[in-house]
Amino acid sequence: MSQQVVPVALHDLQRPVAGDLERVASELRRIIAADFPVIVGVNEHLLRMKGKLFRPTLLLLSSRAAGSDDPRAVTLAAVVELIHLATLVHDDSVDHSALRRGMPTINALFSHQVAVIMGDYLYSRAIIELVRLDDIAPLRVFARVTNEMTIGEMRQLEAHDKLAYSEDQYDELIRAKTASLLSGACEVGALRAAVDHRAALARFGMRLGMAFQIADDLLDYTAAESVTGKPSGLDLREHKVTLPLIAALGSMSAADRGLVAELMTTPDPADALVVEVIGRVTAAGGLDYARRRALELAQQADAELDILPASPARDALRDSIAYAVERRS
Amino acid sequence: MSQQVVPVALHDLQRPVAGDLERVASELRRIIAADFPVIVGVNEHLLRMKGKLFRPTLLLLSSRAAGSDDPRAVTLAAVVELIHLATLVHDDSVDHSALRRGMPTINALFSHQVAVIMGDYLYSRAIIELVRLDDIAPLRVFARVTNEMTIGEMRQLEAHDKLAYSEDQYDELIRAKTASLLSGACEVGALRAAVDHRAALARFGMRLGMAFQIADDLLDYTAAESVTGKPSGLDLREHKVTLPLIAALGSMSAADRGLVAELMTTPDPADALVVEVIGRVTAAGGLDYARRRALELAQQADAELDILPASPARDALRDSIAYAVERRS
Repeated sequence: MSQQVVPVALHDLQRPVAGDLERVASELRRIIAADFPVIVGVNEHLLRMKGKLFRPTLLLLSSRAAGSDDPRAVTLAAVVELIHLATLVHDDSVDHSALRRGMPTINALFSHQVAVIMGDYLYSRAIIELVRLDDIAPLRVFARVTNEMTIGEMRQLEAHDKLAYSEDQYDELIRAKTASLLSGACEVGALRAAVDHRAALARFGMRLGMAFQIADDLLDYTAAESVTGKPSGLDLREHKVTLPLIAALGSMSAADRGLVAELMTTPDPADALVVEVIGRVTAAGGLDYARRRALELAQQADAELDILPASPARDALRDSIAYAVERRS
Repeated sequence: MSQQVVPVALHDLQRPVAGDLERVASELRRIIAADFPVIVGVNEHLLRMKGKLFRPTLLLLSSRAAGSDDPRAVTLAAVVELIHLATLVHDDSVDHSALRRGMPTINALFSHQVAVIMGDYLYSRAIIELVRLDDIAPLRVFARVTNEMTIGEMRQLEAHDKLAYSEDQYDELIRAKTASLLSGACEVGALRAAVDHRAALARFGMRLGMAFQIADDLLDYTAAESVTGKPSGLDLREHKVTLPLIAALGSMSAADRGLVAELMTTPDPADALVVEVIGRVTAAGGLDYARRRALELAQQADAELDILPASPARDALRDSIAYAVERRS
């Protein structure tokens, strides 16, 4: 794998499991079904804002690539998306976010109360469905992962306003918050495969997930720039410390560090200040460093796949790395 | 069982399982242990505000009374308390409550964010612990119960400001919100007992739990009166409709119903209005009706125990009914 990664469209890498992915959507609908009006309303909204099914895709591709031939794969794929959804609902409530995937969040559209309860509803439905499969193995993985995600959320609360936040702390954060579920998706897909294949896919998912989150944090510095000519810098506005800033701080002048400190202590900082800090982070090599780190993780993820036999599913998993690192939204 | 129930102290009914209950506290400490500072801090606070362990008591007594001889009983008892704790943390966050058991709530002492994340942390720890026991049976019960409790919380949101709220809806609400976990505690205690004993204990817990919640709702009308001479009526202040009001509305005059409607549409109603409505609910027989209903459920709970062999644990379960119905706090 070269330093340059060619962008890959999600539907390309989903091709080997396209049929299964369609069934995932109806499984998800079945699992969260309720006869209580508010819950029905929230469910409909959540199903409309259905995401890209990246985690189900990884689970199904892992299952296929490892030759684990698990008839429960579609259900397990729906469960991993459900756990992801439950997490998003609580995250939005914790962050008081108003929009998600261009649509109103549950806390914004209904209420904070409904969001807290619905997150619990969705998560307990996921557990019920896993229990129904009558196998403790996927429960073991997902219970551990869900707990890690809550610890990641706690770490996230600490990643605010702290100029001393280290790259090690950032790595711990993104492993727990993001990579653990991607790793869990890959591992659960391969539960019935050979032990070394399962372990390699779990490691693959962890590296992929970390690269995925770094790419996400990079987008916050670069995304809107290409579209509107003005960077958004939402993380900076919310005083969230991510890898580009952590990397840049090490080589910044005292004056530049002072400017960052000013932004981090200013509630609702002005656009000009945000743009200025993004410029200095870029000039200090913060974006380049984060890109290099994402590519390094991408290469490690790629190497984990070598143990698997060649197949269209394995190729698609390789493509998922490029997708994760190079995506534009 | 007569219409009159003699008050029973909690420590009396806990006597047959006192040794096990001490071990429950250290099991709980072990299960929620973390090495992340914020979580450690919240855990310490939660362990200090440790409740009366009523649910662990029911689980241990059921295990003993059904002769199920389950070496995991102490761990399962810690898990049921942990699920209860996780629910309380989210409930307080949903209700914006500032105090719980005379101590600051997690949302008040830390933040709303920490409360949402900690509820998820505690619940996922409970699942991990159940997975560790490597048996799907307790998971099946607790997953169903946890989901029912979230539906109960949703129902609670609807039990506001609604003069048309029916007794059937109230029954559904308290079954889901409160009785399901007490029933689950009894059932899980008896998982390795004879099927008919297990089923009887599950039904016992359901009836007991409904009586318990009605007693709780009655206390809101009567509690502080005996101590301060002034009723608190917190539910009414928050426009929560419970059984005494539902029962009273049926026989109230149009004028009285109008007064209730006034209270229900007044944000932060004055003490005088609350006291007046409590008086009319009492005069219309609302409290008497709720007391009769609690006693009816208590008798049904009592009858379920007849199938079990006589034992000190069965006697203590009978006493737990009196405790639930007659408690003063």
